[in-house]
Formats: sequence, C-alpha cells, structure tokens
Amino acid sequence: METYLIFRDLAIILIAAKCFGILARALKAPQVVGEIIAGLVIGPCMLGLVNQSDFIVQMAEIGVVMLMFNAGLGTDLKELLKTGPVALIIACAGVFVPLVLGTLLYMGFYGAAAVGSEHFVRALFIGTIMTATSVSITVAALKELGYLKGRVGTTIVSAAIIDDVIGIIVLTFVIGMKSSDSNPASVILKTAAFFVITIIGGVIIYKLFALLDKKYPHTQRIPILSFGVCLIFSYLAERYFGIADITGAYVAGLVLCNLHDSDYIEKKIDISSYMFFAPIFFVGIGLKTTLNDLNGEILLFSIAFVLVALFAKIIGCGIVSRLSGFSIPDSLKIGIGMMTRGEVALVVAQKGLTAGLVEPIYFTSVILLIIVSSIATPILLKLLYAKYPERIAAAQK
Amino acid sequence: METYLIFRDLAIILIAAKCFGILARALKAPQVVGEIIAGLVIGPCMLGLVNQSDFIVQMAEIGVVMLMFNAGLGTDLKELLKTGPVALIIACAGVFVPLVLGTLLYMGFYGAAAVGSEHFVRALFIGTIMTATSVSITVAALKELGYLKGRVGTTIVSAAIIDDVIGIIVLTFVIGMKSSDSNPASVILKTAAFFVITIIGGVIIYKLFALLDKKYPHTQRIPILSFGVCLIFSYLAERYFGIADITGAYVAGLVLCNLHDSDYIEKKIDISSYMFFAPIFFVGIGLKTTLNDLNGEILLFSIAFVLVALFAKIIGCGIVSRLSGFSIPDSLKIGIGMMTRGEVALVVAQKGLTAGLVEPIYFTSVILLIIVSSIATPILLKLLYAKYPERIAAAQK
Repeated sequence: METYLIFRDLAIILIAAKCFGILARALKAPQVVGEIIAGLVIGPCMLGLVNQSDFIVQMAEIGVVMLMFNAGLGTDLKELLKTGPVALIIACAGVFVPLVLGTLLYMGFYGAAAVGSEHFVRALFIGTIMTATSVSITVAALKELGYLKGRVGTTIVSAAIIDDVIGIIVLTFVIGMKSSDSNPASVILKTAAFFVITIIGGVIIYKLFALLDKKYPHTQRIPILSFGVCLIFSYLAERYFGIADITGAYVAGLVLCNLHDSDYIEKKIDISSYMFFAPIFFVGIGLKTTLNDLNGEILLFSIAFVLVALFAKIIGCGIVSRLSGFSIPDSLKIGIGMMTRGEVALVVAQKGLTAGLVEPIYFTSVILLIIVSSIATPILLKLLYAKYPERIAAAQK
Repeated sequence: METYLIFRDLAIILIAAKCFGILARALKAPQVVGEIIAGLVIGPCMLGLVNQSDFIVQMAEIGVVMLMFNAGLGTDLKELLKTGPVALIIACAGVFVPLVLGTLLYMGFYGAAAVGSEHFVRALFIGTIMTATSVSITVAALKELGYLKGRVGTTIVSAAIIDDVIGIIVLTFVIGMKSSDSNPASVILKTAAFFVITIIGGVIIYKLFALLDKKYPHTQRIPILSFGVCLIFSYLAERYFGIADITGAYVAGLVLCNLHDSDYIEKKIDISSYMFFAPIFFVGIGLKTTLNDLNGEILLFSIAFVLVALFAKIIGCGIVSRLSGFSIPDSLKIGIGMMTRGEVALVVAQKGLTAGLVEPIYFTSVILLIIVSSIATPILLKLLYAKYPERIAAAQK
C-alpha cells in the first residue's frame, strides 16, 4: 500500500518527458520523439530509474484513449465521409502489402513452405503482426504540426481505424488456421454489430448531449460526462466486440464532434492529457524496452523485419493514395503516417504467442519496430510538411 | 493485463460523482458530499458496481495531493505568517483535547487503567487515532464556497499542517511506550530536518522557477515542472521524514505560491483535478466502506467514538480560537473545519494494528468517523458561512 512510491516514478517521468521534449524541439524534432527517448533513457535500457508498473501501464492507456478521443472530437465529419471510400482502399492496401511482404520475409529467413503447413501459418503470422497500424503517434505529431484536421490527416486517421478492423479480421483468420477456438464469421458479425450499435447509440447520446449542452453550456459536467462516454465506448469495444479500445475512443469522439461545446471538451481533455497522461504514454513506450535477449541472428532478422514493415506500409498506402488522386508528397505523408506501430502490434504478437504461432524472442523485433517507427514518423512528417505544406489545413491552423 | 477493465470503473466513478454532485448542489449541499455518497452507492456498501482497486487508491492519492498542492499555491504567504502563531496553539489544542477525551472514552467502555499499563497504552492509542485532522475535505468545501483564502481558511489549513506534525510525534511516543523500535527523539529531529531542508530547497527552487517563469511565462512547462516538484516533495516527506505526503504537497505549493504564474499553475492543476483525480478521491472514501463486521457493541462504541472525536476537535480548536480573538461564529468554523478525519486516521490505526495496540474491529469506528465528518463538515461550513459570511474573503471572491 506504499502509494507514495508512484509519486517518485511520476515525478521522474513528467520532468524527464518535459525536458527531453523541450530538447527535441530545440533540435527541430517533434516533442513526442523527445518523450519516447526520455523513456529509453530513464528506463531499464539505460539508467534504470523507473520500471514499468501496472500503474504506468494503466495511466498510459488512459493517455492513448484521450489522444484518440480528442482526435475524434476534432474531426470534420463531412471531410471524414468524403475521405471514407479512399481511406477504405488505403487501409486494405496497408494491410495486404505488409501481410504478403512479412510472410515472404519469414520464408526468406527460414525457408519457403507449402500453403496450409504449420511453417506457412507461422510465416503468415509474422505478416499479420506487421499489419496493425497504431495511429496515436501520428495523431500527436500531426496535432503538434497543426495539420490533424486537413485532408491528409483525416484520411490517415480514418484509414487507420478501418485498418484496425481489417487487422482484427485477418488475425482471427490466421489464428483460426491453427486453432479452432476462433471463429472468423463471428468476428465479422461482432464487428458489424459494433458499428450498428454505435450508430444507433451514438445518435441517442448525441441528442442527449446536445440538449445538455444547450441548457448548461461551458459547464464542468459537459467534458466530464463526455469523457465518461468515451471510457464506456472504449470499454465496450474491447470487452464485447474484440475491437481496440482506442477505436472505441475515436468513435466516441466522432459521436460528439458536432456538439457546440466540442472545442470546450477538447480543451479540457487536452490539458489533462498533456499534463499527465500523454507524457506517461510516450515515456511508457521507451520504458517497455529491454534489449537483453538480443543476439546476432535475431538482430539481423529484427532489422529486416523493421525495414520491411515500414516500407510495406509506405508502398502499400502510398501507391494507393497516389492512384486515388493525392499528390506525390501527400501520398508519401499518408504512407509514412500509416507506418507507425504501437501497442496493437504487441497485442497481436501476444495472441500469437498464446496460440503457439510465434516465439517470445520475436517480441524484440516488434518493440524495435514500435520504437523506430515512433521516432521516425514524427520526424519525417515534420520534414515533409515543412517542404510541402498542406494548403487547406494551413488555412485552418 | 486487461487494462480496459479500469475504463469501466473510471466511467462509473466519474459519471456517478458528477450526477450525485449535481444532485447535492440542487439540494443546497456541497458537491463533495454528493461525491462521497456516490461512492457509498456504487461501492460494496450498496450496489457493488465498483470495488476498491490499487489503481483507484493511487489515482485518489494523486487527487488529494493535487488538492493540497493547489491549496498551498493559493495561499497568501503574509496571511499565513500572520496566522502562524495562533494556528500553532489551535493545533496543540486540537491534538490534546481529542487525545485526552479518546483515552477517557476507551476507559469508560472497558475500564480505567493505571498509567503505563498495557490497557492504558491501548486507551491512549484510541485517543491518538482521534488526533489526526485531514484537511482535504475542508479545503475542498472552503474552495467551493470561495473562502479558502480568508483568515479562517488560512488558519484552518496551517493549523491542520501543524496538527499533522504534532500527531506524528504523539503517535511515535505512544507506540514507543509499547515497542522499542520507534525513537521519539529521532522523529523530532527528522521533522525539524524536513522543515530546514524544505526552506533551503524551497528558496532555491523558487528562484529557479522565477527565472523560468520570467523567460517562458504561460507555457506548458511551468505547470508540468511545478507538479513534478510537488510530487517530489510529497515523496520525500513520506519516504524519508515520516511526514504525510499531503503535507509535502502543501509545502510545495507554498514554495511556488509567490510566482507570477501561480494562478496559471493552479488553473491547469485544477482542471485535471476536477476532471479525474478529485472525484476519484471523494468517491474512493465511499468505496472503502464495508459494514460487514458491525455488531451491537462495536456500533455503540463507534457512535460514541465518532461523537467524541468530532466534539473534541470543535471544543479544543474552537475554544482556543475564541480565546485568540476570533468571533464565536469564526471559532465554530475553525472547530468544524478541523474536525474532518481522513486517510491519516486509517494510517495511524494501521500502525497501531502492527504494534498490537488496536484490534481490526476498530477500523469500523475509524471509517464511520471519516464518513460522518466528511459529510457533516462541508454541510455545516456552508450553513455557517451562509449565516455569517467572512468579510475579507468575500471581497476576494
């Protein structure tokens, strides 16, 4: 019950995150990169001042949920519906290309296999791990740059949400090839049910909030109850529909994004987010990293894994974006925005471990992918936007 | 690792706290009373929707630290130094009277005892449990009413801080009468060391922050790094000096209260506090309550215990306040403001349990005291201030 011990960890995390964030900005890199590096420095990788704990994991999860809720709240719903069909194709390409290239990578390292053999399913699973985009880092980077609400930003976020859903379906199919517990048909049904229930529930909740907002504008109850709705959506999505909590949070944001007070809610959540939860999330990525199990072979595989995973998304999403009418710089932004991986990739790997499809040693590759993509994406996006600013979004800034 | 489960608890806590808070206000009672009752309703006492968990305990502790940090930040340092001597006498009376009356209560129930006998030490310990004021509920109530910065408010807060220190010394003496582990001289030394180190460290930290604030006024780094300092003070106080974390947090607030941006820091902390942490703290008080072990004898003792504990503070602090020149209504406000008990009383009881001085069954009495005082204090303060408003503070509102 020594609760005061968390104060120590929290103080170190917040101060380190802020200092490294300021340093990163001084070096013209995005703040989030500094915060992730802060986690590497204070964590078991280097100084060992702070270790991962349940409390940090939970605070970080609230942080990422807040980030996605705010992204939803800030969405221009008309723009989203306009980008929807394109986002769907981009998402499909963003799942398909990494899946294929990941499978080939594994076969390249450990030998080809006949379709349907266990070796083949293992290879396919490495591809599956590569499919899951985790858009929160991209969202944070775009927000910092002021381009989250632009056409590119909206396309990335909606493609990533669709990507999440497709990724879950693929995962279920692949695991279904090994074990008989998972039933792909029920997954598709559940996913459909989630969106149907969300739309019906969302309309009712929106009407209730619109009434509340009209009667008591700019009162504490609006952001508090809204965040309550966000938590309920996150919980229900993950608990009953097998959909990531962050997808639920984003959808909750979409439900409330047309409220008069949506900016007010966003501001209140944003303050709590940057004061505590978001730094804990970004530092937490670095804290998770231990590089003890690394040996030559795994290191080589990991490097190849990271490169393939990153380029597969850039190529898959980028080419489809270009074909859909985006300019070359904008297509590149979308490809790079979609290449970040996060918690979801670890969750997928964890599912594979339980199903006996992947060895624990490959977690190192996944963590390396998360770190490299989390650091590279914000930097590359910043460079790209500096050289090729987006006109519409720049006007909205 | 099912982190999403906390979303469910958090959603229920936040929504229930807000709804009961609004209801309480509609019934002209302070919001915090509604939030505590929300905890009783959703907790194991009634609906059983949410149970105490490590996460809730930790979030609640951050909440109470924030509350005290903000109280420190909002303090008028000149007023504090002016009220200091009076607060010291009030605190002494607030420790002495409950200690004596609590001891007599135990003897009244279980028979008188010779000074120094084990039975006497047990009786004395019941008195010791009664000494620890927990000012956070009073702070929240005064803040809601807009009177926290007045002369009465400042006196209560500083008396409660001094009370905490005296309470620790008394606790150490009483436990020292039973076991030989605890050394009263070292406690006094440690306490003195805490304040000396705090003053020296505080001056340095204040100068650094004044520089930072001058160079980067109104930037995120100011509130984030300030809260980092608050966490460090809380941690060091409890870890190395045996002083409550909330005292450390309050002192950190005092250190920074003269900054140009102290209002800015207060506002940022306040938003995070009312959005999440404070409701969790207040609901948490209700969640902790289970009334399973209650039987007739304990119930009778508990009622007597609660009454004696409340009146002892009102009489002790009230009479001394009156003698120090406060008006009768203001003396009553101080007495009632000092009568709240909280976590610290439970911590004291826990120490007694470890030392073999108190049975687990008496925890029911302590919890009852916490609940009754937490609900009664804000209501009584509101009534008193409505009838006898404080002139100076009303002008500051």
